[in-house]
Amino acid sequence: MGADKYTIGVDYGTESGRAVLVNVATGEEAASAVHSYGDGVIDAHLPGSDTLLPPDFALQNPQDYIAVLEETIPAVLRASGVAPEDVIGIGTDFTACTMLPIDARGVPLCTLAQWRDNPYAWVKIWKHHAAQPEANELNKIARQRGETWLDLYGGKISSEWLIPKIWETLNKAPEVFAAADRYIEAADWIVLQLTGEEKRNACTAGYKALWHKRNGYPSDDFFAALNPSLRHVVDEKLSREIHPLGQRAGTLTIAMAEKTGLLPGIAVPVGNVDAHVAVPASTVVGPGQMAAIMGTSTCLMALGKQERIIEGMCGVVEDGIIPGLYGFEAGQSCVGDHFAWFVENGVPPAYYEEAARRGLTIHQWLETLAARQKPGEHGLLALDWWNGNRSILVDVDLAGFLLGATLATRPEDIYRALIEATAYGARIIIEAFQAGGVPVNEIVACGGLPGRNRLLMQIYADVTGREIKVAGTDQAGALGSAMFAAVAAGKAAGGHHSIFEAAQAMAHLQERVYKPIPAHKAIYDQLYAEYVRLHDYFGRGANDVMKRLKSLRQQVVANG
Amino acid sequence: MGADKYTIGVDYGTESGRAVLVNVATGEEAASAVHSYGDGVIDAHLPGSDTLLPPDFALQNPQDYIAVLEETIPAVLRASGVAPEDVIGIGTDFTACTMLPIDARGVPLCTLAQWRDNPYAWVKIWKHHAAQPEANELNKIARQRGETWLDLYGGKISSEWLIPKIWETLNKAPEVFAAADRYIEAADWIVLQLTGEEKRNACTAGYKALWHKRNGYPSDDFFAALNPSLRHVVDEKLSREIHPLGQRAGTLTIAMAEKTGLLPGIAVPVGNVDAHVAVPASTVVGPGQMAAIMGTSTCLMALGKQERIIEGMCGVVEDGIIPGLYGFEAGQSCVGDHFAWFVENGVPPAYYEEAARRGLTIHQWLETLAARQKPGEHGLLALDWWNGNRSILVDVDLAGFLLGATLATRPEDIYRALIEATAYGARIIIEAFQAGGVPVNEIVACGGLPGRNRLLMQIYADVTGREIKVAGTDQAGALGSAMFAAVAAGKAAGGHHSIFEAAQAMAHLQERVYKPIPAHKAIYDQLYAEYVRLHDYFGRGANDVMKRLKSLRQQVVANG
Repeated sequence: MGADKYTIGVDYGTESGRAVLVNVATGEEAASAVHSYGDGVIDAHLPGSDTLLPPDFALQNPQDYIAVLEETIPAVLRASGVAPEDVIGIGTDFTACTMLPIDARGVPLCTLAQWRDNPYAWVKIWKHHAAQPEANELNKIARQRGETWLDLYGGKISSEWLIPKIWETLNKAPEVFAAADRYIEAADWIVLQLTGEEKRNACTAGYKALWHKRNGYPSDDFFAALNPSLRHVVDEKLSREIHPLGQRAGTLTIAMAEKTGLLPGIAVPVGNVDAHVAVPASTVVGPGQMAAIMGTSTCLMALGKQERIIEGMCGVVEDGIIPGLYGFEAGQSCVGDHFAWFVENGVPPAYYEEAARRGLTIHQWLETLAARQKPGEHGLLALDWWNGNRSILVDVDLAGFLLGATLATRPEDIYRALIEATAYGARIIIEAFQAGGVPVNEIVACGGLPGRNRLLMQIYADVTGREIKVAGTDQAGALGSAMFAAVAAGKAAGGHHSIFEAAQAMAHLQERVYKPIPAHKAIYDQLYAEYVRLHDYFGRGANDVMKRLKSLRQQVVANG
Repeated sequence: MGADKYTIGVDYGTESGRAVLVNVATGEEAASAVHSYGDGVIDAHLPGSDTLLPPDFALQNPQDYIAVLEETIPAVLRASGVAPEDVIGIGTDFTACTMLPIDARGVPLCTLAQWRDNPYAWVKIWKHHAAQPEANELNKIARQRGETWLDLYGGKISSEWLIPKIWETLNKAPEVFAAADRYIEAADWIVLQLTGEEKRNACTAGYKALWHKRNGYPSDDFFAALNPSLRHVVDEKLSREIHPLGQRAGTLTIAMAEKTGLLPGIAVPVGNVDAHVAVPASTVVGPGQMAAIMGTSTCLMALGKQERIIEGMCGVVEDGIIPGLYGFEAGQSCVGDHFAWFVENGVPPAYYEEAARRGLTIHQWLETLAARQKPGEHGLLALDWWNGNRSILVDVDLAGFLLGATLATRPEDIYRALIEATAYGARIIIEAFQAGGVPVNEIVACGGLPGRNRLLMQIYADVTGREIKVAGTDQAGALGSAMFAAVAAGKAAGGHHSIFEAAQAMAHLQERVYKPIPAHKAIYDQLYAEYVRLHDYFGRGANDVMKRLKSLRQQVVANG
């Protein structure tokens, strides 16, 4: 009779990394530990420098990623008392596209004295937005050339993705581009550090680097049309060898075993993306369900047996979420961020004082007040575009919008209207999925928001007209990585045969289910119709006032 | 050689009444005193009652108006040391339409035991909005009948005006309607109290009661079409005798002299309206200038030699502001209220703390921050409809609107956008005046706002492209009433021959003039074009979403 077996999932977020030690048979989370990145998000100055970074920069220090392993893994072993012998694998997931240039040995350029002072040598994280000109140009050229893969990404490539970020470096710092032996996703780089093996994963390749399982990358001619120096970018700076999720990338090196206290030789799966790995951790492993990963922004993921073109989706990738299925991704760029912006910028002192008096957070107090209202009572309607629109309009130049305010409008009214706006945004995506042949019968939510705001969950159920279940874990990313680690370890080692089996054993739902209330749904149907009309008016070209205001703003700021 | 002569102006506002004692020769304000109404605005319960008033009620106690005279006049005499012998007149102005039912002796019904408990027996003040159904019906019937006077009021009669308020009482409390010997404007009632004479003034009759100097009131047939009981409402409940502004209504009674410490027999002019009386007090007594009375709401007044139809104006009345000229009134229903709403509901604690640290009001601190920006920098655009739109759309069902917010939007950005929205609203009115043949070359501002917010004044100059001067007095209402009192007293008594002469002597401007900055004007021209487009889209029927939201809100609340 052996002891229980465990795997570790390490979830690399925007500000910190978190390790969770999970029982492979039950999914029980035995311990978890967080380490905040020492250099955090680098958006003002490089560490140790006074030189201001250009606008829209968001960098990271890859040494912080190693520090996460060194700090959190010993911590979870210690806290749980689990013996290293019983840990059969370690899996990782990352924000994406979070990418870096490395030398031939896999060493990040930014850690070399020669390149340390060059911002383009550092990790560009997902929300580095300085490659927007390159993204715009890439989209124009792809459309002109009639590139068919464009439709798989909602007709538009984001400035957050790999090729614009590489091209930006070629344009702005060609010496860094030349010095880079390869560009790699941090998701794959950390696996390289753990195993010594460079095994690029299908998820980041598919969703962020334009790779297609059957068609490969876009043609060299396409890349050459961007810039002749990019003609061979795939062969010279990337790799055409892409590995499906759940595959074992290799085993833990002796060096990493020493740093972490784990045993060398345990299984390490290929890298994964934080949102995508949360899908099986939310029990979503087949068609008909949608996983909603709800945090500062929201990812909406669904699975299908066929490739479908969905308006404005972020991407469809075969094997991109679950091996053997097409993974569809859409997203909303401003959800939790929306509410955080509001409480920071739009809620007066009396509300903070009353919340404190009641021992509530400001969010809890606003939720309490907003929950007393019926749908339609506040008379407001908002568009959830405070951070642009990711799906289905794919337009970062769109901006926020609130209508219906009167002198009687109170902060809780606006708070509720902003929640509703994100729910309408989710519904418009769901309806695009349905219309495109990807059914969404039920939603499973995970991430930070669902556990914190019941009103929000009920509103989502009422607005979408669908039952919403909630993942049993608060750490769906790390749990998903631990699940894939169990698959990489395999049945024989005490792990699982497949991600389906792992989900069956390790992923759970909360008992609480949010069901649509018919009377609310009826009112929200009316309000949703208003939302769609305004969404189309401001988002589809009838009145491009948001773009003109943004452009005027840029001119005014540029003229100093 | 006589001593200097003085008059007193008493300005009846929404919350209080103010007396100012003014030197007739110089306009110098020798003393002023305020008395807050004991019962304030009665919008929840009648005094001494627990019964909740219906929604949208706003009542007052007429005894509070008498108390203002008893308190403030002795106070200004005392404070100034001016002898009663040197006070040659007392003038008054009032909010309007602020109206009450009286018995045959002029006693307000609400002061009689029999009617004290009936809300419809009390003074309905200007912002009593419960007569909206009657106003809607009146407008429908007037349109159907092709009533030509409708165009003189921008095509729509407000629920704030006299006939809807009377009709509301007929519908809801016919016993009060029957018991009322007459209905009277508070502006005329207070003159009746001072002089014992009922002399109805042309300003309230013209702007609030559909009276026309040449055509009289609408026909009895029109009133009968509203309700047969209203056929003879003018003859039975009002009066056809209307007196021009500046005319002497009578002289102070012995009883009132005893209550106030003034001498009996001094001149009292006919009543006036607070906003209208401020026009000559701002030096505006002829065509080409616009007086902007800027407070919680804004009145925009201009003068002309001919009757013109201006889109959406509140009214044009011959002799309605200055005898011998046509007075044009337009308005914005939410200006200072807009900013007050915002600081109360939308500014977070850190801003209040920083303002306090700097010894500034929150408005001053927001103004300081907003003044650091250039036009167009915040990227926002608002419609100034938090309290509906008075001119030029004349639609109380319109609501507020803010567009362009991002996660980087700060409270000072919104504050500035709200100021700009009211400036665009003013410009759209000014352009309607120009288009209708009433030139506006220059603006003179008065009221509470101009002295408090220089940024606002500069923005108004930049947006409208016009020089803005500022009245020398903070109390343009009371000063205007004192000026008309000097006219009623007449030259022989030491007063003035005409309001033109009174303005020459008593009304002054501040030295500071706000001049449009061409670079700002150029940007604001672009933003104004965006404003107009949204104004027309939401305000002229292309998308009636604001009305639908309001209607839904009313249904939801009603289903309770």
